Amino acid sequence: MSSSSLESNGTTSPSKPLRYGIIGSGALGGYYGGLMAKAGLDVHFLFHSDFHHVKKHGLKVDSKNGDFHLPSVQAYDCVDNMPPLDVVILGLKSTQNHQLPKLLKPWLHSKTIALVLQNGLNVEQATAAVLGPERIAGGCCFLCSNKVGPGHIRHLDYGRIVFGAYRGVDSNAIGPDQEILSQIHQDMNLATIECHLTDDLPTTKWKKLMWNIPFNGLSVILNASTDAIMKNPDSRLLARRISEEVRSIACQTGSQIDPSYVDWVIDHTDDMVPYDSSMRLDFIHGRAIEVEAIHGNALQAAQRKGIAAPILETLYQQLKFLAAHRS
Amino acid sequence: MSSSSLESNGTTSPSKPLRYGIIGSGALGGYYGGLMAKAGLDVHFLFHSDFHHVKKHGLKVDSKNGDFHLPSVQAYDCVDNMPPLDVVILGLKSTQNHQLPKLLKPWLHSKTIALVLQNGLNVEQATAAVLGPERIAGGCCFLCSNKVGPGHIRHLDYGRIVFGAYRGVDSNAIGPDQEILSQIHQDMNLATIECHLTDDLPTTKWKKLMWNIPFNGLSVILNASTDAIMKNPDSRLLARRISEEVRSIACQTGSQIDPSYVDWVIDHTDDMVPYDSSMRLDFIHGRAIEVEAIHGNALQAAQRKGIAAPILETLYQQLKFLAAHRS
Repeated sequence: MSSSSLESNGTTSPSKPLRYGIIGSGALGGYYGGLMAKAGLDVHFLFHSDFHHVKKHGLKVDSKNGDFHLPSVQAYDCVDNMPPLDVVILGLKSTQNHQLPKLLKPWLHSKTIALVLQNGLNVEQATAAVLGPERIAGGCCFLCSNKVGPGHIRHLDYGRIVFGAYRGVDSNAIGPDQEILSQIHQDMNLATIECHLTDDLPTTKWKKLMWNIPFNGLSVILNASTDAIMKNPDSRLLARRISEEVRSIACQTGSQIDPSYVDWVIDHTDDMVPYDSSMRLDFIHGRAIEVEAIHGNALQAAQRKGIAAPILETLYQQLKFLAAHRS
Repeated sequence: MSSSSLESNGTTSPSKPLRYGIIGSGALGGYYGGLMAKAGLDVHFLFHSDFHHVKKHGLKVDSKNGDFHLPSVQAYDCVDNMPPLDVVILGLKSTQNHQLPKLLKPWLHSKTIALVLQNGLNVEQATAAVLGPERIAGGCCFLCSNKVGPGHIRHLDYGRIVFGAYRGVDSNAIGPDQEILSQIHQDMNLATIECHLTDDLPTTKWKKLMWNIPFNGLSVILNASTDAIMKNPDSRLLARRISEEVRSIACQTGSQIDPSYVDWVIDHTDDMVPYDSSMRLDFIHGRAIEVEAIHGNALQAAQRKGIAAPILETLYQQLKFLAAHRS
């Protein structure tokens, strides 16, 4: 399938189909992996508690773009049983990254690459430490989906992925060949996933952080949904000030983002249905929150270059306290 | 009594004793007024719900410096019944300042002055609007006390008052005569209240704000006592950063405060017993919080002079949201 889409791109030598692994087959990995398997791509899913249910009943996706059910998927409950993989899509949260050495090594071959679809900045570092920096792509997902039961995903809205080579913290890593990134891109398009390749992953990441840093942060600190934050004039102005500070940091680190993007973030949030951020859901349910990936790594990026980040640092320290002290 | 203490100060003509009124006879007004009445000064107390209890049982103060009981105090339940007063000590919270016109006018005479012992910056404005700017003194109290029952105050620690002429938001008001301020000072010393006169009320206020802004603010936002804030390394660093920002604002508005005062604030808080700030107690008990007096007025002072106050503004907006949304 990937070869046929390559031909449509004018490439002369069709590539060998890629074998995909989904590590973290939840709201994100289950949704994207499900679409890819449905399109006939060779997708292997790692499950934890859902394994036996999926083996028996398959994977079910309720989507605003059409529900579907895959009665039989290539499911595993242990990485050691997985075959060698060409591309692993990391859908688990960055708070689980301490598990990566155990999860990644078994199916590694000499050309395996990882597509890290985790929230936050430089979250690819943990994967790069296992696979090597030249094998890492990173991406941002604009997706609203939940896992509503074992092997059962509900896709609510959006779904776009923007991804590209990860160049390391200092932007000097080589990253994977463009050829394999293009092949992933075409496979995803084939699977009806809106997908864009970028040569500038940091700017893509910073743009997403212009939403994530204010709204994930304030939703936990103020114990509030996005619509409550937007309706109150003080928190609304605060969200805008935070987004502006993140833009300013991004620009000083070399990402060019127009000031009007702050307006877009605010307007876009106004248009959202009342929404509990992933960080708020994690916090409420007693799970680890992605404060290091989202706020901590952005703050580190600012501090490495001596860029002032007073509001970001305030949110980071508040979130760290709350994560340590929640009842 | 005041005349005898004036003599000890070398003043030749003994002044007429002052008649004091205590408006807000709670943890603060009940404690200081109680000490002053105990010393034989002419003190008139306005009570609300405690009036009948105090009329019958008097005023009781349990203090680390010695318990005492005043079986009969000059108590009122209505300002209209109070005699003309020379000095009114305002111990009510600034959140009640909308009541001032009603509370202040009845006992006003041509030389009445007010000593405003309220938390925050420029809280004297509301009193000045009723009495005129030339009749206002302001002060900071360093006091730990609670009202534990009707007409019953528990004094836990400290008790120092630093007060002086209020010069208005723009520091151009004349303020009361030094003579009457000195007389109040001597009366308070006579009443065993540690008391200091200052010519620089703004600097005194800013120094107190270097504690109040971080610790009142974070105690509500993080739902935490001072010791929890101090024990966690992130919130501890945040409290210090906030105190530093407040010092920086103060210096830019003309108050000279040494950088080492930040260390003093932090060290002093380390030495405190676990303590719930007044703002946290107000918040927990569903009372209005003094966010405008403490954070709002400090932010306005910064904004009037174009001084950056990113962390203070963040705390202010967070507190405004929380005050509007508490359940």
